[in-house]
Amino acid sequence: MTARDDRDEIFLSWQELFDLARGFLTAHGLSRAQADALAGALCKAERDGCRSHGLQRLPGTVETMAHPAFNRNADPVPQALTPAITRVDADYGFSILAAERGLPLLVAGARRLGVAVLAVNNGFHSTALWPLVEEIAGHGLAGLSMNPTHDWVAPAGGTAGALGTNPIAFSWPRRGRPPYVFDFATSAAARADIALHRQEGRALPPGWGLDGDGRPSTDPAAVLAGAMLPFGGHKGSALATMIELLAGPFIADRTSRQSAAFDGGAKAAPCHGELVVAFDPALVGTALGADDASEAAAEDLFSRIERQGARLPGARRHAARALSESRGIGIPKPLYERVLSMMPPAG
Amino acid sequence: MTARDDRDEIFLSWQELFDLARGFLTAHGLSRAQADALAGALCKAERDGCRSHGLQRLPGTVETMAHPAFNRNADPVPQALTPAITRVDADYGFSILAAERGLPLLVAGARRLGVAVLAVNNGFHSTALWPLVEEIAGHGLAGLSMNPTHDWVAPAGGTAGALGTNPIAFSWPRRGRPPYVFDFATSAAARADIALHRQEGRALPPGWGLDGDGRPSTDPAAVLAGAMLPFGGHKGSALATMIELLAGPFIADRTSRQSAAFDGGAKAAPCHGELVVAFDPALVGTALGADDASEAAAEDLFSRIERQGARLPGARRHAARALSESRGIGIPKPLYERVLSMMPPAG
Repeated sequence: MTARDDRDEIFLSWQELFDLARGFLTAHGLSRAQADALAGALCKAERDGCRSHGLQRLPGTVETMAHPAFNRNADPVPQALTPAITRVDADYGFSILAAERGLPLLVAGARRLGVAVLAVNNGFHSTALWPLVEEIAGHGLAGLSMNPTHDWVAPAGGTAGALGTNPIAFSWPRRGRPPYVFDFATSAAARADIALHRQEGRALPPGWGLDGDGRPSTDPAAVLAGAMLPFGGHKGSALATMIELLAGPFIADRTSRQSAAFDGGAKAAPCHGELVVAFDPALVGTALGADDASEAAAEDLFSRIERQGARLPGARRHAARALSESRGIGIPKPLYERVLSMMPPAG
Repeated sequence: MTARDDRDEIFLSWQELFDLARGFLTAHGLSRAQADALAGALCKAERDGCRSHGLQRLPGTVETMAHPAFNRNADPVPQALTPAITRVDADYGFSILAAERGLPLLVAGARRLGVAVLAVNNGFHSTALWPLVEEIAGHGLAGLSMNPTHDWVAPAGGTAGALGTNPIAFSWPRRGRPPYVFDFATSAAARADIALHRQEGRALPPGWGLDGDGRPSTDPAAVLAGAMLPFGGHKGSALATMIELLAGPFIADRTSRQSAAFDGGAKAAPCHGELVVAFDPALVGTALGADDASEAAAEDLFSRIERQGARLPGARRHAARALSESRGIGIPKPLYERVLSMMPPAG
């Protein structure tokens, strides 16, 4: 560890952080394959400054692994349902290993057909979606991913939770540059952000949630006990509903309501499906002899967005990544110490 | 015509309205096949109370057909690029005929593979997306469609147009009931709605647009000359960008900027591509022996949304449709008279 101590942060190299996270998970009985996949995803988030999906998720994995259905030795095997649909049953382990194991078939399918689907089932979901779609872009493909969560979010015009915070992530590959990647929740705010407001005694901005009687509220405790609101009114609500359907019933997996019921108060990570779609951005263009023109049009769009001072969604992550690579990955000291303190005694 | 005159409306049967619209289009030289397809889509919108995409689009078709590139006799032929991707070149006629001709291959592909794509290219786009995804749902499939428009919309954090108003529509089939269908623009408001505010001398709500200097403005004329804003801040902006990429470069067609340049001041309908994706909602479930459970989970979601008083997005259209079927389709009298007055002399 080349740890410098700076503003209450410990700085670790990628390998040190990865070893810490993987060591934590295997020490708690998780299989090596699952620990590799989950530690990789949490470390990528931490490295890129996405702390909400980074190392701070590690302590909570203990509660997830304590869920009666959790399978520490899940060893998912991809299954080709059709030439275009690969399905991987996460078998009640963490989703991320199942998604990674399905990825090669998804990539091959999208290259052959122009579009392909990966359906991940029955996974405890503790990771952000963007690392996966970024990986898809690394194969020269566009990626789209979405999943339900728990039914914390009221539909627009409603009074009580029916939808999840349902994230959606998308990537578009760029030659010689990091891909275009976005990843956002379809709720107005992240649940963790509301919890942070409660912890700090701050009122919520209007539009984030409803109290237990379905009335607009800026009291974080009331909203956590009541319902969150979708972003963008009825449009965000419709999008969240689409995500419930495509990443739930379409892939024969739980809706956010069913996921919450399955948790049964265990406070584990939500257990549900994940839909991933990959598109070959060059297939149609190549067939029509217009591939270069398509790439130029996409690059022109990105440059017009950036030239007027609007940021591309992945830009902040890439800046944080560059900083992490030059100075090490900064971990808040209290979190680092908490992880160490939760490490079970060896042997 | 069983026209009753009521609140300045003329009431027509479906056949009367369809004959009026088709007659108008063929009298202006449009091929019978294109006129059938376009009249059908405009009449469905009028019948369902979606006036912005209904008969009021008919007068503007004259300007579209006057665009130097417009092809009154376009006779699109579907082409299977891969088993999963059907492409139809609209050949500079109206998009809708190309989309309808590609639909049978899209449906067959989705049934066989679980997912399939229809790419419509080079179509003048004058119709709402929901009639097409509703038709897909009529085949027992889920449908997703999107397209660019013209680059009227600034990205979140930006100052000038770079994105289109980029609509997205989705359908989910329901047994014995109308499908779940949404269709919304990713701009905060419709361009037609901003024009209506200008016409009526009303200020815009905040958040709809920017003036020519990129500053927030509530002056409709300034916003029409400046830039519209996306719905939902950076999330809506990201979604609009995804639509540009998937319904533009992915299918080797124009971005909203290229579509505006192609118009060259002709004030025709935007000419661009349209992406349609169909999913078989029963394929994964049937493979896993869980089809009924998936359908029940989707229905439970819809019922939880409706039971708390939140409306499903298609509900208003279906209410308007029922009314149109019982009393005839109401057309504003001035619009009806305008259409008649623009009818070229027979022979």
